[in-house]
Amino acid sequence: MKEIRKVGFIGTGIMGASMAMHLMEHGFELKVYNRSVEKTRPLTEKGAKLAATVSECASGVDAVISIVGYPKDVREVYLGEDGVIASADQGTVIIDMTTSAPSLAVEIYEAAKSKGLYSIDAPVTGGDSGAKAGTLTILAGGDQDAFTAARPLFEAMGKNIVYAGKAGNGQHLKMCNQIALAGALSGAAEAISYARAAGLDERAMVDAIATGAAGSFQLSNVAKKGMEGDFAPGFMVKHFVKDMGLADEEALKNGKKLPILEEVLRMCRELEASGHAEEGTQSILKYYEK
Amino acid sequence: MKEIRKVGFIGTGIMGASMAMHLMEHGFELKVYNRSVEKTRPLTEKGAKLAATVSECASGVDAVISIVGYPKDVREVYLGEDGVIASADQGTVIIDMTTSAPSLAVEIYEAAKSKGLYSIDAPVTGGDSGAKAGTLTILAGGDQDAFTAARPLFEAMGKNIVYAGKAGNGQHLKMCNQIALAGALSGAAEAISYARAAGLDERAMVDAIATGAAGSFQLSNVAKKGMEGDFAPGFMVKHFVKDMGLADEEALKNGKKLPILEEVLRMCRELEASGHAEEGTQSILKYYEK
Repeated sequence: MKEIRKVGFIGTGIMGASMAMHLMEHGFELKVYNRSVEKTRPLTEKGAKLAATVSECASGVDAVISIVGYPKDVREVYLGEDGVIASADQGTVIIDMTTSAPSLAVEIYEAAKSKGLYSIDAPVTGGDSGAKAGTLTILAGGDQDAFTAARPLFEAMGKNIVYAGKAGNGQHLKMCNQIALAGALSGAAEAISYARAAGLDERAMVDAIATGAAGSFQLSNVAKKGMEGDFAPGFMVKHFVKDMGLADEEALKNGKKLPILEEVLRMCRELEASGHAEEGTQSILKYYEK
Repeated sequence: MKEIRKVGFIGTGIMGASMAMHLMEHGFELKVYNRSVEKTRPLTEKGAKLAATVSECASGVDAVISIVGYPKDVREVYLGEDGVIASADQGTVIIDMTTSAPSLAVEIYEAAKSKGLYSIDAPVTGGDSGAKAGTLTILAGGDQDAFTAARPLFEAMGKNIVYAGKAGNGQHLKMCNQIALAGALSGAAEAISYARAAGLDERAMVDAIATGAAGSFQLSNVAKKGMEGDFAPGFMVKHFVKDMGLADEEALKNGKKLPILEEVLRMCRELEASGHAEEGTQSILKYYEK
């Protein structure tokens, strides 16, 4: 497979803009597309070419990267009439980094293969701050040789690059991450809620238990942030709801019911509906204040 | 308050026997009581005196320590007709280290106070292995001066000694620990179950996500142990059920409903009823294999 120099980047929102910027800093030639064009400006000002359509963005490049909103957006971008698969040159590596349905990733992989394209699903963890710092964890599924060809791109954007095996497995790994996270976050939130109701010193409580068997990243970082009254998003409730919904759907497809995930999803949907959609996931603490 | 030299130790089960042994190693004079007398033998062989009753164990000592099974046992040991409070000498420090109801700890504290005794509730975390190694975390509630007098005892048995404030707060802290742990454990178990159903490499999955936002002690240690087919108890399902039941009851008393805790409790009760009561908590993985 040939070396990747030119990259079409679709979706320059908060995450995408930072990721695209890192690619340019690492010497890749960028063409960018975003539905609202003003979000491409910081990149075009640094020399990225502006594409007017997805189709224009996906043609004449060695790789296409996308990070958009929902699986329906991913479907449109890749499988739509003038989408990436219809437009990309033979041999292009196409990489969707949106957190999306594993089954859709497989569908795109199959469609890509039949057109002589290579597809990688490569969702990330680490949030806005990880994207900005270039320290994302990237969870990639697809053919090994396509992954190897794409690795320099991943290394420009992330720090912990994981090859998870066949197409869809990157998304599956991301689902596992969100599932484990949901349990740890909700457990931490319930411990804090209990402590409040019992009149304990919450900070002393977290300090006392965080280094033992009850310890988690979510307790020591995310829930603690909410405990201190800071609800600014690292990771927004609405995105967590999206991810948990995908994980639940996919688990059910595989015959697994995950009651804890479903309960956290239910709680977060309630939060979303009551005005907390764009706060950080630590807002789950507010669920218990009703 | 006077220095503690002589200790009556009630409950020499797996945890208690290790803890009592550490006290003897640190030079405390021990008198021991256990319902089934043969479990006191390793201690009496090393020079501990055998008490035939709770009452005998609790009199003529500077401190009484207990670690028994359920709150009803704690109630009987302390508040029963020939219990610790009726039998201990004026000025004795009485320390219940059983994981028990915070409200019962307060009740014992009040009864003790009216008889000129000092009461500390001091449940532990760290399990059998922590008890054996003398590395328990001890979460203590009660009057500060009584805690200070008892500190040398705690230091002989544990490593992380936390003073949590007033009577009952040690138990409250322990409840917080079990609540946060329940969330983290169940999230980890659901991630592993998802991975299995999706055909992912489970070990690679845990390695990929354990150092990020989804990371927890339960994922990296407990659930991972179960994933590898090892269901030997560090912490038994039946004890986890007991602790979660206490936490749920106490939260409800304070007007808090904790849906995640209740769901994990329900799942673990099912496991308990289907023959897994004496396995380790990692057996929660089996819940998903039905």
